[in-house]
Parts: sequence; C-alpha cells; structure tokens
Amino acid sequence: MEIKKYDLVAIGTGSAMLVVDGFLRFKPDAKIAVIDKDEPGGICLTRGCIPSKLIIYPAELLAEIKKADEFGIDVDIKGINFKRIMERMRKIIEEDIKMIEEGLKASKVDYYRDVATFIEPYTLKVGNNIIKGETIVIGSGSKPLIPNIPGLKEAGYLTSDDVLKLDEIPESLAIIGGGYIAMEYGNLFARLGCDVKIIEMADRLLPNEEIEISKAVEREMREIAEIYTSHRVVEVRSGNPKVVIAEKDGNKKEIEADEILVAVGRAPNSDILKPEMGGIETSNGWIKVNEYLQTTIPRVYALGDAIGKHMFKHVANYEARVVLSNILGMRIAINYKAVPHAVFTQPEVASVGMKEREAINKFGKDNVLIGFARMEETGRGLAMKANGFVKLIVKKDGEILGCHIVGKDASILIQEVVLAMQNDIKVSGIINSMHIHPALSEVILWASSNLMSVDDYAKLSKNFI
Amino acid sequence: MEIKKYDLVAIGTGSAMLVVDGFLRFKPDAKIAVIDKDEPGGICLTRGCIPSKLIIYPAELLAEIKKADEFGIDVDIKGINFKRIMERMRKIIEEDIKMIEEGLKASKVDYYRDVATFIEPYTLKVGNNIIKGETIVIGSGSKPLIPNIPGLKEAGYLTSDDVLKLDEIPESLAIIGGGYIAMEYGNLFARLGCDVKIIEMADRLLPNEEIEISKAVEREMREIAEIYTSHRVVEVRSGNPKVVIAEKDGNKKEIEADEILVAVGRAPNSDILKPEMGGIETSNGWIKVNEYLQTTIPRVYALGDAIGKHMFKHVANYEARVVLSNILGMRIAINYKAVPHAVFTQPEVASVGMKEREAINKFGKDNVLIGFARMEETGRGLAMKANGFVKLIVKKDGEILGCHIVGKDASILIQEVVLAMQNDIKVSGIINSMHIHPALSEVILWASSNLMSVDDYAKLSKNFI
Repeated sequence: MEIKKYDLVAIGTGSAMLVVDGFLRFKPDAKIAVIDKDEPGGICLTRGCIPSKLIIYPAELLAEIKKADEFGIDVDIKGINFKRIMERMRKIIEEDIKMIEEGLKASKVDYYRDVATFIEPYTLKVGNNIIKGETIVIGSGSKPLIPNIPGLKEAGYLTSDDVLKLDEIPESLAIIGGGYIAMEYGNLFARLGCDVKIIEMADRLLPNEEIEISKAVEREMREIAEIYTSHRVVEVRSGNPKVVIAEKDGNKKEIEADEILVAVGRAPNSDILKPEMGGIETSNGWIKVNEYLQTTIPRVYALGDAIGKHMFKHVANYEARVVLSNILGMRIAINYKAVPHAVFTQPEVASVGMKEREAINKFGKDNVLIGFARMEETGRGLAMKANGFVKLIVKKDGEILGCHIVGKDASILIQEVVLAMQNDIKVSGIINSMHIHPALSEVILWASSNLMSVDDYAKLSKNFI
Repeated sequence: MEIKKYDLVAIGTGSAMLVVDGFLRFKPDAKIAVIDKDEPGGICLTRGCIPSKLIIYPAELLAEIKKADEFGIDVDIKGINFKRIMERMRKIIEEDIKMIEEGLKASKVDYYRDVATFIEPYTLKVGNNIIKGETIVIGSGSKPLIPNIPGLKEAGYLTSDDVLKLDEIPESLAIIGGGYIAMEYGNLFARLGCDVKIIEMADRLLPNEEIEISKAVEREMREIAEIYTSHRVVEVRSGNPKVVIAEKDGNKKEIEADEILVAVGRAPNSDILKPEMGGIETSNGWIKVNEYLQTTIPRVYALGDAIGKHMFKHVANYEARVVLSNILGMRIAINYKAVPHAVFTQPEVASVGMKEREAINKFGKDNVLIGFARMEETGRGLAMKANGFVKLIVKKDGEILGCHIVGKDASILIQEVVLAMQNDIKVSGIINSMHIHPALSEVILWASSNLMSVDDYAKLSKNFI
C-alpha cells in the first residue's frame, strides 16, 4: 500500500468542501485529499434538503389550490404526475452532482470516491491507499437511524434516501416517527393522495418544537393523515399489506400499509469511519468537539451532522467557516446563539433560539415575556386566510431569546428575528423598524409589540394548545 | 354657531387616531375632537391597502395555479366568482368600519362625521360648529388625482375608490398610469380574465423603482396585458367602447376599452381643508412640515398622505408616533432612513432606501458596491421556480444603503434588510447570521455575499435590463 501525505484531508464532500475551498484560497499550493464514499455534494444535495424541497413544493402548491375555492376560484385538480415531479428532481440533482464531480476531477485536489477508515491518529485507510493528513476535517455526515424493531428488516422499509427513488405514490404509507423528516414526507405523500399513517412515540408530532406549534401542525395533519401519537412500534409483520403493530397504554393497534417509511432520526457514520482508531473520542458515535470544533486530536476538526448537534446544512456551512478560521490560525469559537431551522410542511414551521420552558428555567418566570400575534391579525394574513402565529420569547430587558412560528412563509418571516438575535438587537429594534403594511411580516411586529407575562400567555394559549 | 374648544383636534380617522389614542393614555381627561368627512378608519382601511389586498390575493393564487402544470399538477380553472371575492372584501371592511364607528361613538372623544375647513389659526368650521384646538393633528389623507384630459370627464372613469364597488369584471379596462396602484389593479384584472391595457407616460412601468425591477415586472405583465409605455394620453372619447387616445413620438394610438381606470397619482385634500386659512403653508397643496412634523403653525402637526412624502400606511403610523411624542413634549425628529414599500403584483416588488443612481450621486461610483443574487440560485427558489432577484446597494464600508427585490415574497424578504438598515447593522451582520437552508431568505444572504463594483454590475445586468 502506498502512503500519501497531505496538508489537508477532508472526509466528506458536503460542507467540508467549504473548508477545502477556503484553504486553497489561502494556500494555493497545498496538497489536499477529498474523500467521499457516496456521490459528491453531501447529504443536503444528494439525498437531503435540496431533493426533498424540490418534490415537496408541489405539495405546498396543492395545499394552496385546495384553498382556492374559499377565494372564489373554482378549480379542479385533474391529476398529479408524480413521475414528472420525481424526474424533475432527479434531473436537477444529477446535473449538480455531475458538475461537482467534474469540478473535483479537474481540480488539483486528489479526489477519492471510497470509504475512509481511521487506522491511527492522522492516518486513514482509503481503498488501497494509506492517507496521512497534517490536518483533517471530518464532515462525514449521518445516515438514517434504523430502530431495532422485530420484523422490520424482514418486512422491508424505506428510508428518506429511498423515497427519492420512488416512481409511484404508494397507495398507503406508514411512517415510523413524527419528527421533521417524517412530517415533511408525510405531508407530501398525504397531499399527493397517499393514505398516510404517522406513528410517533412522543405524545405529539414534532416533539422538539413548542407544544403550540406541534398542536397547530397536528390539527392540519389530521385532516389529511391518520396520526398515532404516544404509540410505540413494537413489531412489524411482513405481507401485503405490511402491518405495523404499535402499543399505547398496553393496547396494541395494527396499522396496515403498502410501504413503511422509517424516519426516527439520524445515526453517525462512526461504524465505518472508526474515529476511535484515530484517537478521536465519540459520544454515542457522534464525534466530540470543543468550542473550536477540534476533536480530542488537536489537528483533527469535525463539523456538520458528524458532531451530532444541529443537523442542518446552514449550521454545517457556518461550522465550516469556523473550522477554516481555526485551521488558518484565526482562533474563533463556535456560537450557536441564533441557529434557526424550518419544517417545510403545510403549515410551515420555523424556530430559533430558546423555547418558553428553557427561558424560564434559565432566567426565572418573572424575567421572561412572551410576545404573541396571529397571522390573521395582519391585513395580508387576513387576505390570504393565513392560519398561523408567532410566539416570541423575550428577556425582561428586551433581549430576544427565541422565536417560534407556524404558518405561511414561516421560514422567511423568522429571518428578521435571527438577524436581531445574532446582532444583539433588542425587541425595540424590531418595533422601531418599519414593517410594510400590509405584508405578512407585520405579524413579527405585532408579536414584538404584544409582550405579556408567562402567566398571561398561559391563559391566552389555553385556547389553542 | 357654537364654539367648541378642545385640547386636541384630529382631522382624519386614519393614522391620526394613533395620536388620539396615545394622547388619551397620557391625559385621560383631555377633551378631544375627531373629524372625518368619510367613513372612519382612514384610506388604508376604507379604500386603500386593506380592501385592495383582500381582492388582490386571489390574483396571486391564480398566478400560482397557472404554474401548477410545470410542477406535475394538472388543474383546470373552471370559473372565477368575482362577486364572491368582492363581497368577502366588503363584508370584512364594513365590519371593521362599523367597529371603529361604534368605538368612536362610545368613546369620550367628540366624533364629527363632517367636512373640516380652517377659518383661522387653530380654528375649524365643521358643519355647524366652530371648533378650536389647543393642538391640531392633520391626517387628512389624499384622493385620486384626476388629470385634465379632454373628454375624460364626459366619457366617465373609475378611480381606485370605485374599483372596490364593482360587482362584475369589465370585459376590457384601459388604465391611465403605470405606478403601483395602476399595476396592482392591472395585474388583478388581467389575471381575472379582463382585457387590460396599461398606458404609462414614462418609458417604463413602475418608474420610481430600479429599472431592472421595472423591466422584470413588465416582462411578466406583457404576458397578460397590453402595455403602452412612453404614451401620453391626450384625449378620451365617449362611447361604447370608450376610446383612449395616447401619443408617442407624435403618433396617435387609439386604445378601446369598456372602462377606464385613472391611477396617475394622489392629490391632497387642501381644496376642502383650506389649511392656508389657518396660516398653514402648503406646497402644491401638500402640507409643509419640519422634521418634527410641525406645520408652519407651531401646535399644528401633520402626518401621512397629507404631507405628500411617503404615502404608505406604515409610514403614517410611524409619523403618528413621532407626532404624539412631540405633542407630549418628548422632542423627536422624523427619520426616513429605512422606509420600505411593496407592490403586490406578480411578481411582487419590494424596496427600501437608495437606488443605485442615488447612491452613486451621493457617495461616488467608487464608494458603492452592488450585491446581486437570483432567487433561482437558492434551493428553495429553484424548487418553486421563483423567477426574481435581489439587488443590494452597499457603501464601501459595509453600510447598507438600499435593497430592491422583485419576485415571490419580496415584501417579506426585504424586512431583514429594513431591520439591518434601521439598526445600523452592516452587510457583514447579514452574512454572519444563519439563513435557513433552503429557505427563500437565502437569496438575501447570497446577494450580501456577492458584492461587486458598479461597473461589474453594469456588465452583469446588461443581460436582463
């Protein structure tokens, strides 16, 4: 076996590539290796956010079209060409992957399309090569977590990866899990006409969101899908249909479906990467890093899903910038002050920062204010019958601690709050900024101007939780 | 005639009511008169933003539905119930007006539904009353400007006020004007199936926007309406159809239509109010104010359309807050640093701050950078085939001078930039804030990260102007 030495080794072609690109700008003569066992582009492009959003958008359109009648528009949905939706997605993704692949091959970095496994510190086995890196960046991503349910493997199941390969809408689909991947695909398939059944162990869907948000999404989802919360899947039986057996309070429920989608979370790739062989500590398989994103081996950094914190592409991109700075000697600590995320269901969900409970635990009930406004209280929200709301978590001195939105365009509306939080703008900074009347963004202004005590909010929210 | 004396007199029940409400909070025993010749609520509610947005939203839905086919959804628009659209709007507006009216009648202010006319400083004639105010707030709004075109009056025409009374879509509609009111209604009626013909004197639609924005809107509008730019209307002939005669380069064009909508701008109400009788100076009929929104008579303030500056409801509301502070003795100067506006057409337009030319004139070409990104460069924009862009105007030191957006959700996307401008956040503050991937707000991040010289932007934009 040949031993190859590099200045920088990147494991993964997702956000780790930002480190590579940045490193090359500062050190154009550096020797760099880039390794990925899968198609280049990372999870986000090849089997994550991008393909999912490409196929989810038609569901959003369908939801809008179904509301058209309320606005005096008589419209008939004659058919849905699922194959065309999927082909458009695959064409775009394949072109992007090809472009990245060709770029990698044409560049001066050595690109290995192979599995990387640590064999000792700073040293990896990659196919038939031994690769040593002066500095190593681990951006090895994650994979669908498959729970150990009797009969599941035998019955067969889909993961979020497999969904992208479908050419037909299954007649019925049981989804194990109620987190954001489960909900995005559940919403999509239900709106496409599939008989969707969502089985979640927690007592509500999207259990990581504020309870009001979960309930708002659940209300809409119950109109288009069967929802089983507080149900633990205990067994799966093969057959046609397959049968998912879920237990609640000791009672068993048999849920039949043509296909099963497993979406209970993500798992690390440490079983393949074997970071411990490189002296790198992990926690449940996720790579441990300090605030500079260094692993337990000083010149080995890790970012993105691999560290198991905020598994979102925009976070991984940010982490890549921090890693790059630290590699180049500009010591920067990571700051997860304003990390937003969204769930692209109808209604859409977006969230940043602390939830009410976290804020109360940290600062005490008397130091926390809640801002609340409904979209329908704004002119534009009224016009579009936008059925959602904004919940703002504010410290008594005006510092914005968090924001949670459900409803139309939540993923855009939240950005103003993210900017404020990241740049230490207090809630008065939002109130003093003009908001176009009547744009939907007024709902952020109304929530900011409608601050109340935790107790008063509890009385108000009783009606919609 | 009885002479009545008040601590505060408000002329107009639009944003001036915010001054009244605030004044009452501080001085609960104050004697206050509120005067409005029209239904209470102001233009925005009774015949402006709110009713227009209520009826315009279905047009947006129609535009979305027409794109559904591109996303694999086969839909058939079977009919549009215009009457239902209008009735929903009128029901909502009437309920709101009634609520305000009852509120006014039940409150301790004296409410006069009558014309107010100044007769001497601090003194008004209102119906059979003489009303004197210790302090007066003029929020007397504006009205549609009717140009002096031969034959127009005889032929008959609609204004934006009259559109709200329609129960049927005219078969054809000639619109004199190409500003935002003309475009919002032009877009609406064209999408509802009306044969719309827009006649604008300037060489482009929306002549107050950046030229790229005008051109982007014009491209879409030409698909659904006839557009006559650089055409000056010289005559209107009565009949069925009516004939609008417009001149371009000496050539006359006859444009036939069942109805004519006049939307060339707004005019002040000074002909009725006669501010000059109260010692209040005007300019072309608009009331002159200093930076404290004081008129030439010290204890008479003016705000909103009446001062003829930024005729938007969110500006009038802001001005009301400034007036209130000044009346209460907390001297605050007006600050028009970050005044946004939007045009609710498809594509939507939103804008804040300086345009490229203004920035160059003020700071010199070498001190101005342009940031640019297309919506389709973002994952979400690609998913929804969002055909728009963001143009950011930045001073070399990073200060954001302006932002101009055309495309889906422009009115929401701009809010992040408004917040940044209002709170002195530089462009780096946007770049350092996480933007949800893939939300449409990434387009603001891309534009902020893609700054170029004015010359480089000129080369780039050549292709789409």
